[in-house]
Amino acid sequence: MSKNSDLQKLRHSAAHLLAHAVLELFPDTILTIGPATPEGFFYDFLPVQNFKEEDLPKIEQRMHEIAKRNLPLTHEQVTKSVAREMFANNPYKLELIKGIPGDTVGIARQGDFVDLCRGGHVENTGDIKHFKLLNISGSYWRADRNNQALQRIAGTAFYTAEDLALFEKRREEALMYDHRKLGKELDLFSFHEEGVGFPFFHAHGKIILNIMKEYVRDLLNKAGYQEIATPMMLSDELWRASGHYDHYKNNMYFCQVEDKTYAIKPMNCPGAILIYKERPRSYRELPFRLAEFGLVHRFELSGVLHGLFRARAFTIDDGHIFCTMDQIEPELVSTIQMIKEVLHKFGFEKIKVGLSTKPKDAMGSDELWDRAINALKNALDKADLPYTIQEGEGAFYGPKIEFLIEDSMGRTWQCSTVQLDFFLPQNFDLSYINSEGKKERPVMIHRAIYGSFERFLGILLEHYKGRLPFWLAPVQVRILTITDEQKDYAHKILEALKAHHIRAELDESSDQISAQIKRAQLQRIPWMLVLGKKEETNNTVTLRNLDGKQEFGLSLDAVLKKAQQETE
Amino acid sequence: MSKNSDLQKLRHSAAHLLAHAVLELFPDTILTIGPATPEGFFYDFLPVQNFKEEDLPKIEQRMHEIAKRNLPLTHEQVTKSVAREMFANNPYKLELIKGIPGDTVGIARQGDFVDLCRGGHVENTGDIKHFKLLNISGSYWRADRNNQALQRIAGTAFYTAEDLALFEKRREEALMYDHRKLGKELDLFSFHEEGVGFPFFHAHGKIILNIMKEYVRDLLNKAGYQEIATPMMLSDELWRASGHYDHYKNNMYFCQVEDKTYAIKPMNCPGAILIYKERPRSYRELPFRLAEFGLVHRFELSGVLHGLFRARAFTIDDGHIFCTMDQIEPELVSTIQMIKEVLHKFGFEKIKVGLSTKPKDAMGSDELWDRAINALKNALDKADLPYTIQEGEGAFYGPKIEFLIEDSMGRTWQCSTVQLDFFLPQNFDLSYINSEGKKERPVMIHRAIYGSFERFLGILLEHYKGRLPFWLAPVQVRILTITDEQKDYAHKILEALKAHHIRAELDESSDQISAQIKRAQLQRIPWMLVLGKKEETNNTVTLRNLDGKQEFGLSLDAVLKKAQQETE
Repeated sequence: MSKNSDLQKLRHSAAHLLAHAVLELFPDTILTIGPATPEGFFYDFLPVQNFKEEDLPKIEQRMHEIAKRNLPLTHEQVTKSVAREMFANNPYKLELIKGIPGDTVGIARQGDFVDLCRGGHVENTGDIKHFKLLNISGSYWRADRNNQALQRIAGTAFYTAEDLALFEKRREEALMYDHRKLGKELDLFSFHEEGVGFPFFHAHGKIILNIMKEYVRDLLNKAGYQEIATPMMLSDELWRASGHYDHYKNNMYFCQVEDKTYAIKPMNCPGAILIYKERPRSYRELPFRLAEFGLVHRFELSGVLHGLFRARAFTIDDGHIFCTMDQIEPELVSTIQMIKEVLHKFGFEKIKVGLSTKPKDAMGSDELWDRAINALKNALDKADLPYTIQEGEGAFYGPKIEFLIEDSMGRTWQCSTVQLDFFLPQNFDLSYINSEGKKERPVMIHRAIYGSFERFLGILLEHYKGRLPFWLAPVQVRILTITDEQKDYAHKILEALKAHHIRAELDESSDQISAQIKRAQLQRIPWMLVLGKKEETNNTVTLRNLDGKQEFGLSLDAVLKKAQQETE
Repeated sequence: MSKNSDLQKLRHSAAHLLAHAVLELFPDTILTIGPATPEGFFYDFLPVQNFKEEDLPKIEQRMHEIAKRNLPLTHEQVTKSVAREMFANNPYKLELIKGIPGDTVGIARQGDFVDLCRGGHVENTGDIKHFKLLNISGSYWRADRNNQALQRIAGTAFYTAEDLALFEKRREEALMYDHRKLGKELDLFSFHEEGVGFPFFHAHGKIILNIMKEYVRDLLNKAGYQEIATPMMLSDELWRASGHYDHYKNNMYFCQVEDKTYAIKPMNCPGAILIYKERPRSYRELPFRLAEFGLVHRFELSGVLHGLFRARAFTIDDGHIFCTMDQIEPELVSTIQMIKEVLHKFGFEKIKVGLSTKPKDAMGSDELWDRAINALKNALDKADLPYTIQEGEGAFYGPKIEFLIEDSMGRTWQCSTVQLDFFLPQNFDLSYINSEGKKERPVMIHRAIYGSFERFLGILLEHYKGRLPFWLAPVQVRILTITDEQKDYAHKILEALKAHHIRAELDESSDQISAQIKRAQLQRIPWMLVLGKKEETNNTVTLRNLDGKQEFGLSLDAVLKKAQQETE
């Protein structure tokens, strides 16, 4: 049994412990479900009176008490009729019982607490030592807004105090380094009620976005992509033809233009397709690689908006490759290599890949799918990326791979995706003339590396805890002077740095050097160049980094060389 | 009397000549008005049967015949009652007579032709020698769609055959180098019925736009601008507050977001203002210079759309400077210098400036306006740019300057503008804390250099007749080989060029060198590097430009140096 499934058991048992404690404290509470999650566990309750934040310590305290009773956890199978009697007053459990296949259901017990349960527990409540309740939130029975509103208490549990402490540290960090907080502190972006869910990028935020774009643009250029720009809105007929209307209309914005309805694009694919179709294409033009840094708009309920992580508009680094069947594999190899290169560049070394295969009701033959999936597997192998198969989870129109990256706080994020598409080429009747002069249908590969520039920026801010690496920092160097006498020298250094395209600034104040350093640190400027009398006399600088590490007596050339190294 | 007013006389007389010829050929035609225009003249008729394109040569022929009759042109004043009798059957002339102040109106005669006329003619029909009818189009009485539809015949006239020939040459060129035609030929952009009025930029078009952006971004950076990015749509309340709703609502697109109406931005100013207002500003932050390459959408009737010149979406290189009264002049000086520098860079040496001054019902004191207008005049003087005063033509909220550039075909275009704004800072209650700790109101300067990137690109294409200068060309160098034996050498050269960021390609075909040259010429690629056996042996290249001029035996270093010079 893997450590992971052990943790699942512990957390599932902790959910029972939570329910047990709640029933002792609030006996008329109605239980619904209480699963383990990747982060911990929760239990959804229907309380007589809503739980309050201040109830959590009490409940946690009671959980510890029950744990100390060292109650054995037992599990048995009972007939459904017995179970129905046991939970006669709980319509949710009755509904669950009805939904379980077979004639019997599992029952878990600890002391006088009993719950409907598939099984998988620790042996004794005493085994549940290192846990913590985290928050109360609203939920719905079966996650459906039309059903009964419930209250969810969430927590987490670990086998060791160290693991729990690490979790708590990361959680605190996550709050401290929330990108929305950092965005404000570092003057990167803001949100305004005049445009709910639409970020406003300030100068420093825009610099980072521009660097991200230029970096990828350069890679795309070398990889033979053609950069295009397609309109922000296109006729609603196009979106109906593409199938987006049917699937996305609730997330799309519509405008009236003369007597036609236009939709603001939620995706960039149809624009790329219209450019492909602009004129007949020859096999010589394939693979035809189109790239667009395309701003898309997708409506989201205001309740689910979350800074840059979930906004109503974002820019996709979209790639659309039109190619022959034979070109799929080499294209995937270079695409996946590029994704890996970019993720590494941003300090994401731990990458997991999920490969989603043919679902039921898929279009295209088994042979087509097998070829495509094999191409994906080979490409992943060549890139030395481990992957797990997500059997049957592909879209009906083609297999897909998703990249999960782990950040510095141990959280995983899905950003890059590669999606094969047999559908849109058919739907838009795309073709190319093959070497024998005959029409053939190309395959389409959709791929994004950042996914959303804005969301990726949010992830970067949290991953780096606001301390962006030198090459990404909006201000790379701040020059500080011990006294105003060094200001002339400082200006000379500043101009030299700027001439070498280093984003440098001078602290023009006459503040104490300690205050200048503190200000630069708060703004997470990676390098401070401290200039005093000695530095000026020797024509050198002192380089101080954010950790306070200092290098004395560096020549300007040495600084430039170092900067060059950091930027490469 | 200036040459220009002479030309007006000639053209006005030519309009009479046109009407005279039309009445001889189509006696029941009703005349309305026939003025001179900056390009020539027209006459609006109400014909019994619509004129057709093939009528034009006949009418032109008759005009020549009447001209040769050497009829003297006379002009007299008659009482309105006499005039009303003369034009009793012409409701348009009667309406005109009614609208003329005083008791008399002017009458022009030549032979038996008579027209209502303020005067200003040549002496004799024989003086009208060099003219040409250009086209027939639809018009409306008093340019109002609700009035009678009329037919306009337009033409032009000059004093000399040379001037007319030059005009005709330019007109042919303008048709030949129409940017829509070039855009298609050079694969720069396309228009699609799925997005009427919204350009789709192909790879080569996007490269040019990117170069234009990077070039200006670099200048902005040096000039202390902060680049921002604000949302594509903002709440309709904001647009009402800014006053845009009242003035522009017919040109704005609206979307519904939850229960609110959002407008897609037709301008970038409100976004910039929200960023200025994001936190209190100190005088130390002024001048606060915000730049945004902002895509705006403005509805236009499909009938007036005209390629990139008039589209429904375009990107403004928008600048908004928030400054103190004292900073207006230095900011204008650097703004105008920057505009001049950019226009020169794109080969526009002939620049005229119009300065629009205080209108009636302006806001702000005379003193404020005088200061602002003097600042504009001083800045224009410093930039050595001549200007004409457009008395009273400023917007109510501040004076404005417009830049008119003359292209290679002698046409003028208005692109860059600088607009002072006393209104929006007041309307949005903008402030800064001055050096004494008191709140003050900043002034706002709106300025654009390209105006619209897309329209400017269209102008550039026509100005350069599709032959973009080396630094702007999407493909700068095409390598051609005399035989396939030079392909390896060609690849080496290609890689070396690319490593130096030169946009180079290799003609991979085995076509005859003449065919390869022709193809490169059609694609207006500025440099061809022709490689034969001799070049390979000597490790040199032959550089051929678009005019067919060749330089033999250049080393790669010499080519790189030359490219560097062209790009600086």
